[in-house]
Amino acid sequence: MSDTTEDGAPERVRRVRSQRMEAFSDGVFAIAITLLVLDIAVPTGSQRDLLGVFFNEWPAYLAYVVSFATIGAIWLGHDLITEYLHSSDSILLRLNLLLLLVVSFLPFPTRLVGEYLLEVNAEKVAVTIYGLTLLAAATMVWVLWQYALRADLVRPDTTDAEVAILTRQFTPGLLGYVILLVVGLFQPVLAVIGYLALAVFILVPLGRAKRRLYSR
Amino acid sequence: MSDTTEDGAPERVRRVRSQRMEAFSDGVFAIAITLLVLDIAVPTGSQRDLLGVFFNEWPAYLAYVVSFATIGAIWLGHDLITEYLHSSDSILLRLNLLLLLVVSFLPFPTRLVGEYLLEVNAEKVAVTIYGLTLLAAATMVWVLWQYALRADLVRPDTTDAEVAILTRQFTPGLLGYVILLVVGLFQPVLAVIGYLALAVFILVPLGRAKRRLYSR
Amino acid sequence: MSDTTEDGAPERVRRVRSQRMEAFSDGVFAIAITLLVLDIAVPTGSQRDLLGVFFNEWPAYLAYVVSFATIGAIWLGHDLITEYLHSSDSILLRLNLLLLLVVSFLPFPTRLVGEYLLEVNAEKVAVTIYGLTLLAAATMVWVLWQYALRADLVRPDTTDAEVAILTRQFTPGLLGYVILLVVGLFQPVLAVIGYLALAVFILVPLGRAKRRLYSR
Amino acid sequence: MSDTTEDGAPERVRRVRSQRMEAFSDGVFAIAITLLVLDIAVPTGSQRDLLGVFFNEWPAYLAYVVSFATIGAIWLGHDLITEYLHSSDSILLRLNLLLLLVVSFLPFPTRLVGEYLLEVNAEKVAVTIYGLTLLAAATMVWVLWQYALRADLVRPDTTDAEVAILTRQFTPGLLGYVILLVVGLFQPVLAVIGYLALAVFILVPLGRAKRRLYSR
Repeated sequence: MSDTTEDGAPERVRRVRSQRMEAFSDGVFAIAITLLVLDIAVPTGSQRDLLGVFFNEWPAYLAYVVSFATIGAIWLGHDLITEYLHSSDSILLRLNLLLLLVVSFLPFPTRLVGEYLLEVNAEKVAVTIYGLTLLAAATMVWVLWQYALRADLVRPDTTDAEVAILTRQFTPGLLGYVILLVVGLFQPVLAVIGYLALAVFILVPLGRAKRRLYSR
Repeated sequence: MSDTTEDGAPERVRRVRSQRMEAFSDGVFAIAITLLVLDIAVPTGSQRDLLGVFFNEWPAYLAYVVSFATIGAIWLGHDLITEYLHSSDSILLRLNLLLLLVVSFLPFPTRLVGEYLLEVNAEKVAVTIYGLTLLAAATMVWVLWQYALRADLVRPDTTDAEVAILTRQFTPGLLGYVILLVVGLFQPVLAVIGYLALAVFILVPLGRAKRRLYSR
Repeated sequence: MSDTTEDGAPERVRRVRSQRMEAFSDGVFAIAITLLVLDIAVPTGSQRDLLGVFFNEWPAYLAYVVSFATIGAIWLGHDLITEYLHSSDSILLRLNLLLLLVVSFLPFPTRLVGEYLLEVNAEKVAVTIYGLTLLAAATMVWVLWQYALRADLVRPDTTDAEVAILTRQFTPGLLGYVILLVVGLFQPVLAVIGYLALAVFILVPLGRAKRRLYSR
Repeated sequence: MSDTTEDGAPERVRRVRSQRMEAFSDGVFAIAITLLVLDIAVPTGSQRDLLGVFFNEWPAYLAYVVSFATIGAIWLGHDLITEYLHSSDSILLRLNLLLLLVVSFLPFPTRLVGEYLLEVNAEKVAVTIYGLTLLAAATMVWVLWQYALRADLVRPDTTDAEVAILTRQFTPGLLGYVILLVVGLFQPVLAVIGYLALAVFILVPLGRAKRRLYSR
């Protein structure tokens, strides 16, 4: 009753708004994930040994895959959260903008890692900046979901079990990012591989959770 | 009566058209906001002191955040305006293209600011070009809303109070941009921080207005 | 009868397909129009006289505005055509891909013009390549509309008057592009200004036609 | 019965989810196809003989067209597959992400081919990397379709004949890519032309199949 007015317009508008937030976010996710390829520099003047040069660029490919998997995981999480919202509100819209700010910044530290991995000293700086960005992104997804729960934006037909499953998806990753940040100070390459494992690990249970959520 | 014809087709078409304008605009906003990251140059050959080089690039990060917040605020304003339209017309479409022209130009002056802030003389030129672009964008949002009001494109169920709130959102920013343009001639860094404050200031009341508008 | 089957599914599918063609095309238009800004090189090492350097880049701004207006006009024309289609077919989809091929190529000759306008000899080459690309794009819009007419994809409730108006929108531009191609061999700058005038000239009647078509 | 629950919500959610997967994928396809133009380097300092320089860059144009046609064919195939799905599931979502990973990587080997075609030795490396990426993309489309068939995600009203037609579309291309990979080790230019022929060959029957499928 408190939701709709006599003419029903706001409810419709609210849905439209939520859809545009999703469309705008999907757009930013899709662009950020596709811009990552620009971070891989094309070697020039390597007529002699292009194959060797190509393989020597593996840090750039690794960084590409890690960032791709991470944005993919964030997109899936975002997709899952917004599916459970019956509407959005002004604070959610701005929290969402903060998440997008971090996600669309990601190509920059990705390039740093691709450029400086294996360079003594510099690699630790690059991987730490990278890890902080990933941690910020994961945190923003978690904040988005927590806010949606507290602000009563979640659809009323969502069961407690579903809320619990979703909360469990978005929480443990945070700890993983903190641990890998510390690892990165000593073993940068290992940390980057860890970030990949973490993204895949998030992608897999999200999948399993989804199957459980939707196949009841 | 004047709105629909006997077969009802134009009305349907009109809605579709308005949706495609929104989709196209959302696309441009999403791309422009995500391209901003390409304005941050990745330092090369900084194996020695990547951390120092990273922090020295703060003007580029500042410019990134200011432009991101501004495009975010413009997107929210655009979102708010189009929600209140029952249809668009050919003039609105072209005014909208002008707004998109300015918004998609923004990555260029953003790069100028990131490159030249702190450089004597050049920073004033860069910040002034940047400020003029921001002013043009804010003006186009204002023009879009004024035109929609005059051309009777606003949904008939919109109350005078809602119109007043919306008008109040889009007007004071203009004065702020003019003032900051002048400030930028003497204190460029201060002006850029002011542009950030202005974008956040627009984002916040937009949020409050939306809450007021939708929670009646 | 030949159009729908007993269960009505293909009709639904066809609409979905047409919507995805529109969404995909809108995406390409939006990205191509926003990528244009990357064609404007940011001057480096211009601490001394950034303002002078900034103004000296006017060919790049001119090329940016011309290409933006042209893609905007093509988008409007495309929007107008697809509104009048009741479905698409496989040939239309591929003609549409050809149009998108030309449109997404446009940032390249745009950069050529921005780089080489005012350079003796080179400017004629750049402007001719640019003009040929614009002509190809305008031709593809015309082909798309002609094909839709012949393949009976236009909605049956479209009147002959509407068809005539639309055909008149897409035809005269072609002649304009041919004339400007010749002009460009002698007066490249004039030709570029002519391309801008042509795009605006297409935008205005498109607008007027829309008003006439939808305000009956 | 097993598909919907008492309140019907999951079914609705599932459709929404499938739509967002399509929208996200369309976004990535549209961006990747439009980013290809950035792979064509604008010659600098060619005032003397811009026309000669322009024509000398034909490998870059060829690579642009081949990649454009290939992404176009993949998009059409993806479009065709998703039209036949009644829902998606978590594994399909991740397989889809893998396809997008390959597609958005394509601009990189495209640039390699544009840069190194005609360079002894290097051209074979570039064309092989390019061919492997194309093969990976075609394989992912095939995997997506096979998975959808096995996981019972295809709409129940799809006839066996339709399934057979679709399967025939996605299979022979794979063999073609393997053959061209071998050709590329000896005649790189020929292989690239072959990749173009293959993409066009896929585009044409896809079109014909669609016509057959939808015009019954």
